[in-house]
Amino acid sequence: MSDSSSGTPSPVPVFGEVFLRLKPHMAALDALLRVQIGEFEPEIREMADYCIDTSGKRIRPALIFLSGCKGDLAPTPELVKAAAVVELVHLATLVHDDMMDEAAVRRNRMTAAKAYGPVAAVLLGDALFAHALHLASQFPTTEVCHAVSMSTRRVCAGEIVQTLRRGTTEVSFEDYYRVIDLKTAELFRVSCQLGASLAGFDKGLVEASAAFGRHLGIAYQIYDDLADFFGDEKRIGKTLGTDLASGKLTLPLFRLLDCLPAADREELLAEIRGQREPRLPLRLAQMREHGIFDFVAAAIEAELDKARSPLAPWNDRPSTRLLLELCRVLTLQVAALRPTA
Amino acid sequence: MSDSSSGTPSPVPVFGEVFLRLKPHMAALDALLRVQIGEFEPEIREMADYCIDTSGKRIRPALIFLSGCKGDLAPTPELVKAAAVVELVHLATLVHDDMMDEAAVRRNRMTAAKAYGPVAAVLLGDALFAHALHLASQFPTTEVCHAVSMSTRRVCAGEIVQTLRRGTTEVSFEDYYRVIDLKTAELFRVSCQLGASLAGFDKGLVEASAAFGRHLGIAYQIYDDLADFFGDEKRIGKTLGTDLASGKLTLPLFRLLDCLPAADREELLAEIRGQREPRLPLRLAQMREHGIFDFVAAAIEAELDKARSPLAPWNDRPSTRLLLELCRVLTLQVAALRPTA
Repeated sequence: MSDSSSGTPSPVPVFGEVFLRLKPHMAALDALLRVQIGEFEPEIREMADYCIDTSGKRIRPALIFLSGCKGDLAPTPELVKAAAVVELVHLATLVHDDMMDEAAVRRNRMTAAKAYGPVAAVLLGDALFAHALHLASQFPTTEVCHAVSMSTRRVCAGEIVQTLRRGTTEVSFEDYYRVIDLKTAELFRVSCQLGASLAGFDKGLVEASAAFGRHLGIAYQIYDDLADFFGDEKRIGKTLGTDLASGKLTLPLFRLLDCLPAADREELLAEIRGQREPRLPLRLAQMREHGIFDFVAAAIEAELDKARSPLAPWNDRPSTRLLLELCRVLTLQVAALRPTA
Repeated sequence: MSDSSSGTPSPVPVFGEVFLRLKPHMAALDALLRVQIGEFEPEIREMADYCIDTSGKRIRPALIFLSGCKGDLAPTPELVKAAAVVELVHLATLVHDDMMDEAAVRRNRMTAAKAYGPVAAVLLGDALFAHALHLASQFPTTEVCHAVSMSTRRVCAGEIVQTLRRGTTEVSFEDYYRVIDLKTAELFRVSCQLGASLAGFDKGLVEASAAFGRHLGIAYQIYDDLADFFGDEKRIGKTLGTDLASGKLTLPLFRLLDCLPAADREELLAEIRGQREPRLPLRLAQMREHGIFDFVAAAIEAELDKARSPLAPWNDRPSTRLLLELCRVLTLQVAALRPTA
């Protein structure tokens, strides 16, 4: 849902360096997800198993582990359980995404929609989501259910707006930010919030962690949108220009529209609306000419600043050091996309 | 999901007489559902409003109110909130059902899938379900979240099995009961359980109420399957024989298969598998000839007996009297379907 990784042969290790430290955490998450599969009704267990694959990027679980880190300690059962909840929600959204996009392949294998048909895929996504909330209800309080159910509703709202807006060009800058705030940043935000809260950190740090997650999520989505034009097809493992082809108005396109002379602008708008064939090579050349990369990279940096800033009072905490490291890595990832002059 | 009411002009007042006593309860439910619409993100509020229509049969909310009834008291806020939770889950499943069935009309108006498109309908159903769980998380404990999320998973499991089985004939009697236990009886069961539990009844009565709900749900689904062959099209407001046409092996068909001579049986199996045109008038005549109605009506009565039995120790309670009244009304509804000799 948030990161458009349909058809990605192997996930880009976006936050690779930091995530390497989370091997025991991810192993514990794997073990708990295995147990969850056994909780599904016998008739759908194999299908649930198929959906709960373990090859994803697992950004949201990682955010829970990092924001709840107290030092070198092993992952607590609470953090592992919360990580499983957000990962199951994310997997449910992927199953529905692939069904809606009619995607046949994700992460080098058939999507559930392709394997079991679109109707079963809708219901399987529902079952995964229901089970995520069921696991969330196994905490002593309603906190996790409360937070995750609201976040899920917000993610859906963002996706609905994006869907209904596809191919239209009456979209403002604010609309763009609002959608990525809902569809991507929301689960990043709730992951950081729950990590800090379940670790027992004080209210101020929980709120600062949530704000960090939100802005990191926005930055990450803008990076993903930038990579759709400036990525290396082989490296990111997907076709470039899919947003232009599918009429999705993202930040690079917004900026290009602002830079183009009126006649050319009208033609690009027609391409976005699907009224004429998109001319990706031309648009890529124009993006280079008008310095779109630097503009979008600056927008990402602005979000990373907003992510770092609320954590300033807690800069000595292990969790803060790890979270700030994510910002540094994302900046490097953006730099790696920079077109060579 | 549970009651196949697609295209019904106006809901059959299945439990009409009993439900008439619940007018203040339903008014309170309406008011709470109105408030919930305001909780959705502004961009999807109108769509949520469209889905949360107030013309449904509301069997599940009614079960909560009846099983939690202590006498002539007004509905408690807890029962109203739980009723809204199960109704929102049910509405979410209807939105997904209509999308999967490509149904254009339900309850005399366009389905959400038709009004907003299939992709938005998947996401809207997700958002409704997420909000149902969010409302469930507003109880002091995780009880409602825990129960409703598990029930939802079971409903989905039942629907998945039914979907994958459609058009196949290698289905046993046990398989049929298992599917209706999951897809229909589960939400009936959890409604009765929550009603009794939130009313503060003791554990034995909560469990008896849950068992009642489960068997009433099975009886209700068998009644629905019977009406698909023996209903009055004008009265039940839908086309007869849809289960045969869509390859759904229900109890009347099971029994007919058992009664037919081998050659005829093979032909009916081919009709169910979609290998030949279904011959509804012939099958209806054969059903009359072989006394299928009485067989299925007896199966419904057997379930109603199983529903009544666990409540026997609490027969003096107002809630029990109301619940038993539902059994009586369903028996009358079945009798009304009896073909005239």
